[in-house]
Amino acid sequence: VVPALSELLARFRAVRARTTALAAPLSAEDQVVQPMADASPIKWHLAHTTWFFEAIVLGRDGAAAFDAAFGFLFNSYYEAIGSRVARPDRGRLTRPSLEIVHRYREAIDRQIERALVEGALDAPALSRLELGLHHEQQHQELILTDAKVTLGMQPLRPAYRDDLAAASAPAAAPPAPGWCAYPGGLVEIGAIAKGFAFDNERPRHRVYVAPYQLAVLPIRNSDVLAFVADGGYGEPRLWLADGWAAAREHGWELPMYWARQDGGFVQYGLGGVRPVVADEPACHLSYYEVDAIARWLGARLPTEAEWELAAAVTGGADLGHFADTDRLHPAAAPAGGEGPVQLFGDVWEWTASSYGPYPGFRPLSGALAEYNGKFMSGQQVLRGGSCLTPRDHIRATYRNFFPPPARWQMTGARIARDA
Amino acid sequence: VVPALSELLARFRAVRARTTALAAPLSAEDQVVQPMADASPIKWHLAHTTWFFEAIVLGRDGAAAFDAAFGFLFNSYYEAIGSRVARPDRGRLTRPSLEIVHRYREAIDRQIERALVEGALDAPALSRLELGLHHEQQHQELILTDAKVTLGMQPLRPAYRDDLAAASAPAAAPPAPGWCAYPGGLVEIGAIAKGFAFDNERPRHRVYVAPYQLAVLPIRNSDVLAFVADGGYGEPRLWLADGWAAAREHGWELPMYWARQDGGFVQYGLGGVRPVVADEPACHLSYYEVDAIARWLGARLPTEAEWELAAAVTGGADLGHFADTDRLHPAAAPAGGEGPVQLFGDVWEWTASSYGPYPGFRPLSGALAEYNGKFMSGQQVLRGGSCLTPRDHIRATYRNFFPPPARWQMTGARIARDA
Amino acid sequence: VVPALSELLARFRAVRARTTALAAPLSAEDQVVQPMADASPIKWHLAHTTWFFEAIVLGRDGAAAFDAAFGFLFNSYYEAIGSRVARPDRGRLTRPSLEIVHRYREAIDRQIERALVEGALDAPALSRLELGLHHEQQHQELILTDAKVTLGMQPLRPAYRDDLAAASAPAAAPPAPGWCAYPGGLVEIGAIAKGFAFDNERPRHRVYVAPYQLAVLPIRNSDVLAFVADGGYGEPRLWLADGWAAAREHGWELPMYWARQDGGFVQYGLGGVRPVVADEPACHLSYYEVDAIARWLGARLPTEAEWELAAAVTGGADLGHFADTDRLHPAAAPAGGEGPVQLFGDVWEWTASSYGPYPGFRPLSGALAEYNGKFMSGQQVLRGGSCLTPRDHIRATYRNFFPPPARWQMTGARIARDA
Amino acid sequence: VVPALSELLARFRAVRARTTALAAPLSAEDQVVQPMADASPIKWHLAHTTWFFEAIVLGRDGAAAFDAAFGFLFNSYYEAIGSRVARPDRGRLTRPSLEIVHRYREAIDRQIERALVEGALDAPALSRLELGLHHEQQHQELILTDAKVTLGMQPLRPAYRDDLAAASAPAAAPPAPGWCAYPGGLVEIGAIAKGFAFDNERPRHRVYVAPYQLAVLPIRNSDVLAFVADGGYGEPRLWLADGWAAAREHGWELPMYWARQDGGFVQYGLGGVRPVVADEPACHLSYYEVDAIARWLGARLPTEAEWELAAAVTGGADLGHFADTDRLHPAAAPAGGEGPVQLFGDVWEWTASSYGPYPGFRPLSGALAEYNGKFMSGQQVLRGGSCLTPRDHIRATYRNFFPPPARWQMTGARIARDA
Repeated sequence: VVPALSELLARFRAVRARTTALAAPLSAEDQVVQPMADASPIKWHLAHTTWFFEAIVLGRDGAAAFDAAFGFLFNSYYEAIGSRVARPDRGRLTRPSLEIVHRYREAIDRQIERALVEGALDAPALSRLELGLHHEQQHQELILTDAKVTLGMQPLRPAYRDDLAAASAPAAAPPAPGWCAYPGGLVEIGAIAKGFAFDNERPRHRVYVAPYQLAVLPIRNSDVLAFVADGGYGEPRLWLADGWAAAREHGWELPMYWARQDGGFVQYGLGGVRPVVADEPACHLSYYEVDAIARWLGARLPTEAEWELAAAVTGGADLGHFADTDRLHPAAAPAGGEGPVQLFGDVWEWTASSYGPYPGFRPLSGALAEYNGKFMSGQQVLRGGSCLTPRDHIRATYRNFFPPPARWQMTGARIARDA
Repeated sequence: VVPALSELLARFRAVRARTTALAAPLSAEDQVVQPMADASPIKWHLAHTTWFFEAIVLGRDGAAAFDAAFGFLFNSYYEAIGSRVARPDRGRLTRPSLEIVHRYREAIDRQIERALVEGALDAPALSRLELGLHHEQQHQELILTDAKVTLGMQPLRPAYRDDLAAASAPAAAPPAPGWCAYPGGLVEIGAIAKGFAFDNERPRHRVYVAPYQLAVLPIRNSDVLAFVADGGYGEPRLWLADGWAAAREHGWELPMYWARQDGGFVQYGLGGVRPVVADEPACHLSYYEVDAIARWLGARLPTEAEWELAAAVTGGADLGHFADTDRLHPAAAPAGGEGPVQLFGDVWEWTASSYGPYPGFRPLSGALAEYNGKFMSGQQVLRGGSCLTPRDHIRATYRNFFPPPARWQMTGARIARDA
Repeated sequence: VVPALSELLARFRAVRARTTALAAPLSAEDQVVQPMADASPIKWHLAHTTWFFEAIVLGRDGAAAFDAAFGFLFNSYYEAIGSRVARPDRGRLTRPSLEIVHRYREAIDRQIERALVEGALDAPALSRLELGLHHEQQHQELILTDAKVTLGMQPLRPAYRDDLAAASAPAAAPPAPGWCAYPGGLVEIGAIAKGFAFDNERPRHRVYVAPYQLAVLPIRNSDVLAFVADGGYGEPRLWLADGWAAAREHGWELPMYWARQDGGFVQYGLGGVRPVVADEPACHLSYYEVDAIARWLGARLPTEAEWELAAAVTGGADLGHFADTDRLHPAAAPAGGEGPVQLFGDVWEWTASSYGPYPGFRPLSGALAEYNGKFMSGQQVLRGGSCLTPRDHIRATYRNFFPPPARWQMTGARIARDA
Repeated sequence: VVPALSELLARFRAVRARTTALAAPLSAEDQVVQPMADASPIKWHLAHTTWFFEAIVLGRDGAAAFDAAFGFLFNSYYEAIGSRVARPDRGRLTRPSLEIVHRYREAIDRQIERALVEGALDAPALSRLELGLHHEQQHQELILTDAKVTLGMQPLRPAYRDDLAAASAPAAAPPAPGWCAYPGGLVEIGAIAKGFAFDNERPRHRVYVAPYQLAVLPIRNSDVLAFVADGGYGEPRLWLADGWAAAREHGWELPMYWARQDGGFVQYGLGGVRPVVADEPACHLSYYEVDAIARWLGARLPTEAEWELAAAVTGGADLGHFADTDRLHPAAAPAGGEGPVQLFGDVWEWTASSYGPYPGFRPLSGALAEYNGKFMSGQQVLRGGSCLTPRDHIRATYRNFFPPPARWQMTGARIARDA
């Protein structure tokens, strides 16, 4: 079902404007550097999302493009489309300037809007446009996580914004830690054929799930503090072999962005450095860390099917905090109901499932075949979105994925156990 | 059910003698070097398997041990037991000498045999003894694969044995390539509670499998030759992103041990360098390569459940070639029957399943908890054993695992497709 | 002899203004990135040279400093003064902003000027001020070479300035290639005790030099083109062992910034990409390359004593081109006289001398002991300055030094031979 | 002057037999492994020195060779002769076996002896034979240093020989620490044209040396112990920048082979682990370490000219200990005389001179041009030989060279100061 033109136009404008707004608190200097190979410069995100509309949606390249060189500069990983700047070299691109990238955005926005108004986009193009908007929302979250690395990994640790809300008011009746039981059985997961979903969420398919329990709350800072106090970072028997090796190699002794200070712990957030708050969901943890913490808690991580079943049952009554607020940091749980809280929002939840194709998976056609499928090895599935995810971007079937050692995303977890 | 003492004693002696026999064609020089970090010196295998009986089965260490230093030298990865020589440094151990390692083997053999005869081993110890024998068989295969690296990666490429059979006689009625269809459904996989199995094969559990088809034959050299001829090693759209990066980094253009010669292809095997034979199962392929070849063939790799279901149905009528023969190289398919051939033997078959715990998985207790569980990330499951596996070591529920880039094992695959 | 106050004040202002002017053609984005570990961001140069005046000349740090954090951010390598940002991490510093760095420059300039006017600087402080000006001139050259890497190593290869002179008019009577003979003998080199010189130029001392000849002209692009055409980059017998290894590791087949285009050769310069001009002095060559080219020419590199003797004799009549012009690129030789031309300017000339202390060398006292002495291993001496060196910064006794593989500086050479 | 045939034959046999004898205490396992990239397997030394006589002296290769493959296997670094096993891969060569290498030695020995007896070697070939004997003596020292790494870097730290003398009797009248003064002046260093010397020792040439003093004794363990006690390994101001970086990278806190034990210090030697003896010359120190120790002592390292002048004056009256004894470890100074003691023997002495060509240096012709010349960058000159050097191999003009971080050779130093 293709949405009405006016609605689509409005959404296009809103999503594009939101991206620009997210970059606005950053200086041109902040937007050009690449603080580590995994993260990209903010300016690059601004240009790459625009290139996606130009090259993938409108199909313009070479002489027809805004600038013939931009295909090389701003293609992320589409081998089918051509060669490109190596990922770790994105931080070299002082040119084009931020100002020209903004002009690029405006020019392509006008082209897309004109094409929409003139009805020049056929159904496949409209599908690609839809994908382009979801793609842009993915990069909105990356703009925030990558700005966080840029600012938080330099000595002065400046805030991204000084006006972010410091902390949410604690819930009057906060949910108690505990477990929710699920019967499992022969069930279905994955996105139905209708409506937008990424190719990796499809097809909806049967899976057998044994009875299980899922924690009401995600792993919180209080859990991490207790794990640290108990020497968990130094006890190899709690860790996967690869995790123990990674922790040694990188010298992990605390979550990313944490530091000891005055006998306590502080953490850098987009609002600056502040004390670690025990009740907040823990984040900036690698898969290896949450796996070890879960084991130390006498539990395990859920599979993605277990997670999705729980999310489907609760029907969205368990929302946490999203990027639509002015906090941009995980917050303590709101008042709870019957089921688990904060399944959506606050922190992405690592699952025990490695990222692979669903039975019957079919990648998109053409260059878009590379959108998701080629990353289906060496990564773990994460679910639920985070405090940096737009509320209307996430859904129960959504599959995010990162390599197990990744820590710069808003990543935490929720524990599970067999029934 | 504990086997009768005499039977156990005979098995113990047979397995231990087999290990010694496998090392016998190698000189002391061949047995001490470590040709790459992943492979271990043959002498180390001889000593480590013995240490397993001494430390894990008999529980002797320190002053009670044959040599107090051997715990440090020959512990492989048991953090619970103590520190040890770093894996890449195993090739430094010119001392103890091979002769002393043989004396070590004999001494521990006598201790084990005496303990058996005297009834000094209680039930848990007998279980650990059983595990020790399966562990030793795993190292028997590693002795052959690591000897292959030692000999095959040096310029003279000497044969491991000059008397190995050159080629099996072609089957009178070789099976035709094609597909076997399976209905799938809500089925069970994994080892039942009774009898020996590794902890990672348990518990037997339900899984839903959609209808699928499995190739009658494993991927053969003829498939690889066609893939090479078609430029498959140079076409990024066929590869997983990690696979493409690995192929570039390591310069993969052919399977390991292959070389171009006189317009054709040769491959190094334990019997020396010989031409590539089209009908033989292809091996020394990484997961990334078989994944790309499967995609090029318009198919995919099976999950481990799909593989195990097929293996369970055929009931072992589809045996290939094992280490019990005097060939030690994959061979063309024997005469076929109804189902897939060579599911067992010839080459380990990479599956699409990443290696993780089965629902309800419980690791062994004590130090043996590290036997399998801590490796459950970043690896893929392989099934079926190879031409270097002892026939009585493999079974339908057996789960082997290696990282996706590994190529020095006898690794190939079999393709599958949706029904 | 301390210069008159007004002269010193004028020089201070001129040098500081020149630095700011050199950075002016670059955007804030251009000035913040670090294109490789050896090069530093332009903004960092602006701040570091200012920190030198603040911390080393005025001795202000901590609470007395413009900003207490700047000591950590902008100390280059003075262990005696404290810890600092690791060199390869200088490109992370999006903060302080370029604007604040300019304010920092202005504030310290006012402090220095006031101290001068008020006579608050004693003789040692005035000596450090003198050093600070020479130090700043060193960074003026680095600003240009590092801007060149920043701009020239990104895909669009923008010019630093579009108004740079394209080429000097060829000399009416260009000097002919050939040799100048020198008798050598027991001579003196090094700076006399009076007047400014770096510590590494002192003391003036005796050295015996055998009779030798020095080329009239530096190695020119025509020499490099012939070396390339003759396969010099692929002939190991022409190279030092370390040089051959470096050439293989980095894939050197041409000087840095060169590329093949349309059957010919182009090179990137601060004015953009232009054809390689045969008569211009060759630059962006490592020590290994000029050593190989010299050997291929049947000659050798001169020692620093041989170079200095020749430079002392000519008395400066052989000037080439400096950063004071609007060309910023080596130029063909001007009309020659009796001796070698372009000893000074155009390209730094690698010598056969490794960088070490002169007999009787005494480092400066305090933190400045680290200025030169601790780098006296693993580097080669270069002489004569380049087209990016301020004319009044260079002298016959000046010793520059870089590691043998360095190529991003304006480095070439002049050949010598035994008489 | 060519020595008499019978004398040459006797020397050839003696040198060759000495090499075999040095390897004899080691097992075949000890002789095949390569404990680190810089060191070579002992078997490789046995074969390479033989290949030198076969390929370089007799000029036999390909079909004329003992084995056509040995040129590839045992060429060290002669690009002119052809490709070869990469240096770090020498430890892969389990084949040819040690036994075959011994047969190779015997076969080439017979060929050389026959050629000598039959007068089949012309003057150039006899010169190459002479070089081959000195070359073999160089490898005799390497056999000992590389065996030391092989044995000393593995956990059991076995002795090379159990019958080595534990310690020399202390001298009745040991020389007192102090300085010897030298007037310097315009002097000559280097080998005269007559007699054997390596090409890098020639030509003898003039050099001006300012008046200086040289320590009577080399740096001793007592100096190192005091440096350690004073925190010298942790004080950056004592170190060259490259040295400080190397010390951090490798975690240097003591000389190589040293360890703390029971509140004191022990060191591994070819006779096993024994306490550090204060009066013995210190060894297994990198250039960076002796440079730092010299600075801490308020002194500096001598140049190679300063060292050679002193050695020439003393005329050999100051001999230390050589490989001809049954100790193979530095020993305390014997009774002294007028000048410095132990200039020759005990430990190689790092000098402040980087390794480069003497004025007028001419490499040998043909493949032998690569013998010394191509290593003339990035290394420091060492003088005097060590306790592992054959007494008749060393001389005052002898120039050894290693990269500054090397520690596995018998390297120490002697301090100097300006007069």
